Amino acid sequence: MPLHLIASLMTPGHFRTAWRLPHSDPADHLSIDHYRRLALIADEVGLDAIFLGDAPALGADIGSTPGGGIDPLILLGHLTAITERVGAVITSSATYNSPYNLARRFQSLDIVTGGRAAVNVVTTYAPAAAANFGLPEPLDKQTRYRRAHEFLDVVTRLWDGWEPDALVADKESGVYADASRIHPVDHEGEFFSVAGPLPVPAGPQGRPVVVQAGGSEGGLQLAGDFADVVFTVAQTQAKAVAFRDDIRARATAAGRQRDDVVVSLGVIVLIGEDEADAQRRADELYATLPIDDLARGLLLTLGIADTDLDRPIAIEDLPEVPVGEAGSIGFQVSTRALIAERPLSARELVRRTSGAAAGGHRLVVGTAAQVADDLQAWHAAGAADGFTIMYAETAVDFERFARLVVPILVERGLFRPAEHGSTLRERLGLPFPDQRRLVRDATA
Amino acid sequence: MPLHLIASLMTPGHFRTAWRLPHSDPADHLSIDHYRRLALIADEVGLDAIFLGDAPALGADIGSTPGGGIDPLILLGHLTAITERVGAVITSSATYNSPYNLARRFQSLDIVTGGRAAVNVVTTYAPAAAANFGLPEPLDKQTRYRRAHEFLDVVTRLWDGWEPDALVADKESGVYADASRIHPVDHEGEFFSVAGPLPVPAGPQGRPVVVQAGGSEGGLQLAGDFADVVFTVAQTQAKAVAFRDDIRARATAAGRQRDDVVVSLGVIVLIGEDEADAQRRADELYATLPIDDLARGLLLTLGIADTDLDRPIAIEDLPEVPVGEAGSIGFQVSTRALIAERPLSARELVRRTSGAAAGGHRLVVGTAAQVADDLQAWHAAGAADGFTIMYAETAVDFERFARLVVPILVERGLFRPAEHGSTLRERLGLPFPDQRRLVRDATA
Repeated sequence: MPLHLIASLMTPGHFRTAWRLPHSDPADHLSIDHYRRLALIADEVGLDAIFLGDAPALGADIGSTPGGGIDPLILLGHLTAITERVGAVITSSATYNSPYNLARRFQSLDIVTGGRAAVNVVTTYAPAAAANFGLPEPLDKQTRYRRAHEFLDVVTRLWDGWEPDALVADKESGVYADASRIHPVDHEGEFFSVAGPLPVPAGPQGRPVVVQAGGSEGGLQLAGDFADVVFTVAQTQAKAVAFRDDIRARATAAGRQRDDVVVSLGVIVLIGEDEADAQRRADELYATLPIDDLARGLLLTLGIADTDLDRPIAIEDLPEVPVGEAGSIGFQVSTRALIAERPLSARELVRRTSGAAAGGHRLVVGTAAQVADDLQAWHAAGAADGFTIMYAETAVDFERFARLVVPILVERGLFRPAEHGSTLRERLGLPFPDQRRLVRDATA
Repeated sequence: MPLHLIASLMTPGHFRTAWRLPHSDPADHLSIDHYRRLALIADEVGLDAIFLGDAPALGADIGSTPGGGIDPLILLGHLTAITERVGAVITSSATYNSPYNLARRFQSLDIVTGGRAAVNVVTTYAPAAAANFGLPEPLDKQTRYRRAHEFLDVVTRLWDGWEPDALVADKESGVYADASRIHPVDHEGEFFSVAGPLPVPAGPQGRPVVVQAGGSEGGLQLAGDFADVVFTVAQTQAKAVAFRDDIRARATAAGRQRDDVVVSLGVIVLIGEDEADAQRRADELYATLPIDDLARGLLLTLGIADTDLDRPIAIEDLPEVPVGEAGSIGFQVSTRALIAERPLSARELVRRTSGAAAGGHRLVVGTAAQVADDLQAWHAAGAADGFTIMYAETAVDFERFARLVVPILVERGLFRPAEHGSTLRERLGLPFPDQRRLVRDATA
């Protein structure tokens, strides 16, 4: 199976201070021309999908970084209209959307894009988001994931509501649809009461692709039960291999095949014209970061009281269980695995994770060939089925990845560019969903 | 002021049985190619906007007609990406959306379309919709409109949250935005608690255009307080003139200018190559309709117990007050005005309203020149600032209207095609909204 490639369009990039570089345009994140340029390149080289993370709130760090802002459904909906092959992975919150609206929107997107729609279901911790939807504080993590589980159960059943031949359109008799073959869901649960059915039949993928990223127990269970693609983070191959094995085991435990879930590992790339150029750019970007603040934030996240930013942290220094209701479990597990291999100071950790205060994705700095070598090695080791590529500086590294790294991967037979007319689901090697589930359940 | 033109893309058209005609494609409503073709024509001839009605539920008449189905935000989001001038009026329910999500989506759409976004805020009666969102039955009309009023109050304040110069982007100091110039809404009301602000500044229109269609007292109040455009229905010029005067008076009562609200009157067109062809097509379409069923439905809607479909109904036969919690008040008022001019039987009424069971828009049957004459006369009489054009059969009459009627209106100086780069708001002659409202309110 060739590896798949998903491009994260985050602006200005994983180095959130990249907008301060002399050549950068700090208004890129509000420029549709900027995004159209990226999407057309992604489409041209045949990347599997473009992706946008999201939380429905103003970022707490708007004072220092542009971050996102444009609703990803609107932005990627626009970009899929001007492209022909690339899929779209759109982050949506199960906590702050209703299942009927979300199911209908993504079913609609699957129809209008010819089978290129994917939803990345998140549970949204951000307290600022809670306050935008009438909650004094965020729901606790367990409740959020219990809600997300019920949410996806309803959403997938809504997607499955129309039998493939329900649309009769018999001009002679005047029967447009056979309503007996369009099934309600009649769901009554802890969080939702939803009658259904949707006003639209299934799109070309049967169901839009479901993506999941949570690394907590609730997230992993969601992944095993529903996810077609799982986003993950790993700083070490051993951790990545173990994660993929775990996800595949969970899928089989849920009655699915182990290949029914694709694991997509996050990697940040910084690509130089040569090694010296790569190192120069890395130094330039690190110089823009408030390293000490980030290092202090990282110690806090890891639950370490010591404030020495240069003292190596060993795995024994960390509390037993990953701390914090708020933060991402996945990032913590990844950082712990890194420390378990070799003690690293907080400052070193920030460099290794390219300046993410909560621990971050692995940064690969090098030439195009070196980046290709790295991805090939991790893929060969069974660390992932493919990669979600982030960019040290999107305006520079996205295009270098597409124009320089992708051809190398194609040349080596590791990546097969998307073809016009194939659905995202087909490209990822995922099975066509069993749309008869509802009917089967009704008969059982 | 030239008249404006909005194209309703309803499929298969106002004659919901049009899909049964020999030449029709009954899958048009699920075909993105079909909609792309319509949108490109609308863009080419410079129509002000394309429009889609909506309710988040499967239509009760799916057994006999395709109706809508694709989410209008997804569909029109796609169509604005491949067009350059035409605006998009997207129906969204204030009852079944959260104000934060809706405000953000439309602000985002305004940014990515370069100022072509409009939201048609409806309150959604349909019981099937209620059941999709956990309500055992629809909220009563008063409650729905009270909610919609609070909804639009929050949404417009969210849109106004960023001062125009809040985005500093000072590379030297590293200050990206001045957070003190991005204002929360901190709303606590009967229906919503919303902190804000949005993660995006205002788009090119300042605010997306707000459209409103409800003819009940609650709807009219909403229109006076918030609407940039009001959709309406009228079978007689006198009714239309009175309605427009009323709306303009309500706007001034709310502290706005009388020209700050544009009244867009719904008209269905059936355009023949000549008069005989128009009549032949009208007969052909009426022959597909279940006239008797529709006439019985109309009597029920009007509150008439008599079941004689051919007895002329006089205005004295109608109950004092428009009946029914469920139906549209606007359509009833329009039908009553028609009857007040001259008694008409239920069967005649169905013909005059082109087969809408609840009373419908005025159908104009004729050649392109006759249709242009009709619109010119109504516009000259002060009946409307422009028209929302519906089509007897969309696949035929949409293109005839664009290719044949529009050039006549341009020739007569009555319609000015949209230009690339102008916002929908500018085209409609609407003022740029006062984005400083929040700041002013805070200082007051």
